[in-house]
Amino acid sequence: MRPTSPHARNPLPPAVSSSLRQRFGARFSQGESILAQHGRDESIHPTAAPDGVVFVESTQEVVEVAQLCRQHRVPMIAFGSGSSVEGQVLATAGGITISLGRMNRILATRAADLDATVEAGVTRLQLNAALKGSGLFFPIDPGADASLGGMAATRASGTNAVRYGTMRDNVLGLTAVLADGRILRCGGRARKSAAGYDLTRLLIGSEGTLAIITELTLRLQPLPEAMSAAVCAFSSVAGAVDTVIETIQAGIPVARVELLDRLTLAAVNRYSGTALKELPTLFFEFHGSPAAVTEQAEAVQAIAGDHGGEDFSWATHAEERTRLWQARHHAYFACLQLRPGHRAFPTDVCVPISRLAECIGETSDDIARVSIPVALFGHVGDGNFHLVVLVDPANGQDLQEADWINERVVERALAMAGTCSGEHGIGLGKTRFMLREHGAEAMAVMRAIKDALDPDHLLNPGKMLPPA
Amino acid sequence: MRPTSPHARNPLPPAVSSSLRQRFGARFSQGESILAQHGRDESIHPTAAPDGVVFVESTQEVVEVAQLCRQHRVPMIAFGSGSSVEGQVLATAGGITISLGRMNRILATRAADLDATVEAGVTRLQLNAALKGSGLFFPIDPGADASLGGMAATRASGTNAVRYGTMRDNVLGLTAVLADGRILRCGGRARKSAAGYDLTRLLIGSEGTLAIITELTLRLQPLPEAMSAAVCAFSSVAGAVDTVIETIQAGIPVARVELLDRLTLAAVNRYSGTALKELPTLFFEFHGSPAAVTEQAEAVQAIAGDHGGEDFSWATHAEERTRLWQARHHAYFACLQLRPGHRAFPTDVCVPISRLAECIGETSDDIARVSIPVALFGHVGDGNFHLVVLVDPANGQDLQEADWINERVVERALAMAGTCSGEHGIGLGKTRFMLREHGAEAMAVMRAIKDALDPDHLLNPGKMLPPA
Repeated sequence: MRPTSPHARNPLPPAVSSSLRQRFGARFSQGESILAQHGRDESIHPTAAPDGVVFVESTQEVVEVAQLCRQHRVPMIAFGSGSSVEGQVLATAGGITISLGRMNRILATRAADLDATVEAGVTRLQLNAALKGSGLFFPIDPGADASLGGMAATRASGTNAVRYGTMRDNVLGLTAVLADGRILRCGGRARKSAAGYDLTRLLIGSEGTLAIITELTLRLQPLPEAMSAAVCAFSSVAGAVDTVIETIQAGIPVARVELLDRLTLAAVNRYSGTALKELPTLFFEFHGSPAAVTEQAEAVQAIAGDHGGEDFSWATHAEERTRLWQARHHAYFACLQLRPGHRAFPTDVCVPISRLAECIGETSDDIARVSIPVALFGHVGDGNFHLVVLVDPANGQDLQEADWINERVVERALAMAGTCSGEHGIGLGKTRFMLREHGAEAMAVMRAIKDALDPDHLLNPGKMLPPA
Repeated sequence: MRPTSPHARNPLPPAVSSSLRQRFGARFSQGESILAQHGRDESIHPTAAPDGVVFVESTQEVVEVAQLCRQHRVPMIAFGSGSSVEGQVLATAGGITISLGRMNRILATRAADLDATVEAGVTRLQLNAALKGSGLFFPIDPGADASLGGMAATRASGTNAVRYGTMRDNVLGLTAVLADGRILRCGGRARKSAAGYDLTRLLIGSEGTLAIITELTLRLQPLPEAMSAAVCAFSSVAGAVDTVIETIQAGIPVARVELLDRLTLAAVNRYSGTALKELPTLFFEFHGSPAAVTEQAEAVQAIAGDHGGEDFSWATHAEERTRLWQARHHAYFACLQLRPGHRAFPTDVCVPISRLAECIGETSDDIARVSIPVALFGHVGDGNFHLVVLVDPANGQDLQEADWINERVVERALAMAGTCSGEHGIGLGKTRFMLREHGAEAMAVMRAIKDALDPDHLLNPGKMLPPA
């Protein structure tokens, strides 16, 4: 949103480009369209192109690039699928973007251990396609078909997190390349370990600022024997949120529970041709044995009834369920159509669930005060919700309003013991909230770790940590 | 086991003891029995007493002690309940032990958010007693009634980890004091966050070497509506392990599944007056709705039948279930009675579950080759098992045999892509395996983090990281 901080941008030393061209041939590019394509993501930050892109094919190649960049003090930016939403992959200080998209081999899947080892460029849909027939799946589902390396680097989650956790919980081990080219292997394949500092968790969510993740070992989940879905409209957001709180307190292991606000419902109906009531609405999914799934849905229906839920409707057949959840998954694109030709400025926060109704209520009041459309939906079981603010990036007032909404929702979440991002991360867009969220001591510790691991600040400079 | 590395031990500067006496009065002790009591844990490492013990009552008091110790370059050792099993609390380099036992207030429990904030000295049983009637519980259950701060510091787990995770998964946020007395607050109360480096996970499992944890915000779980337990004997360990693999692959959300070997069963029968078959045996617990619990148990019974399980017997009534699980919980004490008057040398490893039967089989072969009794049991759903080796600490051959068994089981676990400790941690006892498990690069990164956060190496020196 805000103008990105002016980063010192040194010209790329000719020795670097000539070395990379010689070593990687056509897999090193300085073509303008390639540079531009790697200088943006799904955020509305203006493109900041790197000076060159290397399409690596192995961890060893990342080592070589890192050694060269370090020798010449050139920034290195890891790039997966480019689907980040806070400017994580933008080359605001120039340098070399390391595209991991060609490192897309699934190295092993081990059904007995419910794990798989993949290269960082493998996407979540690719992995799930490869798992077809194995009885297993990988549950983490951010909106985009992101690369698994990028998902680890941003600590991604999605609609299944209430049941299966986030990337934090589903990565067993990592291979990563440090700023000086050393290969770090951390974690392993044991389900748990009490041996040593948790370097795996340190790299997850570090947005390429501590190391470049090249391989991951992931936990897989057994495909549930049965699934069912349900949808239920409420006259108020509070009734919906209270339904979710009571569901979770009752220990009902709901697999997904998503809240969509009125505006999002209207957008979804228009986009997906559904005829859902245009009210605050919960989408549920239940996983388990056929009997367990029925029992869970009945229990939730009763709870929803106590909180003003209307027309609780079930979808047990695969097609119905898919239709319903596709409508949910397309909510983002549906919202884009609320103002065709405009861009989406997405933001997300997460609060303790007891404050969620209040947080959403006050945010809805803010939304009513601006001229631009703002859709609200999210992973209500975790206390996490998104805003999709539709702006014309050339219109100053739009940007100002979007900025105001974002600032307000983050401040509100922080005041409610929440976080400035539940799953989108920090990138460029939220660095200014880091100090407010974490305080001076935690920021000093984060900086100390950054200095210890990347003393020259070559890895994804300008991201995550605000200027000191 | 092995002689602890000879640590330089400087005399305590008189200015430190006089300052502490003046500030803390009777809450600072240099009495011999107090020192000895704080110089040992449940391991068989010889007592290494500190030079003084401060019984702190607040985070601010920890700050004051840390500032004083830092000024005089005096080691600081955090002490919870003293139930660690790898020498984590021993003052091998002398210094001041900071006892957190009096920081035992439960600061808040929030039913709607399923969380609680506690001081580090609160024990797990104390927390669960306080939660009685709330419909919530805290699931992590290492054998001892450990302090929650200590459990976080050692990344503890227990019998419920297969369903509820370990301390890694159940701590939302921490307050901790750094070596220079700064107060670090990390994490928060949101269920998930993508904002910043995961300092919470970095401190969990760091064994007091990076900071002293003084407060924790913990996730709570809803008490299941129904529970049932079952026990089933197998003619072979392989049959038992295959039952567990198939159970987990089928997505049956078993809450606990524990394996006890023949010798442990014999010890349990003798100690608890049970009449269980003295064969490799699985103990199960199921949590959920009454119908779900019945369905889960029936499904597991069928799987066990396919793998040679005999006499699958259920306990749905609370008393039966308690009797059964008490027998399991007393397994450690039961094993001690196998050789009265001797001490237990516990060790644990964790491997991918596909290798578990093989790992246990080869370990059983080793056990058959030594003269001392060694019981084997563990959290088989995680691939984690324990050995309780019974030794006379004055008998060199006993110690040599115990050391051999430990070395062998760790080497075997590492060769099988496992870890040298699933839940006991490193302390003094397993520092020598760190390099073998993690490799030179990961060790260098761990050391760099230690240097960045505790440059004078005053926090729990000699633990976790082997001498460089």
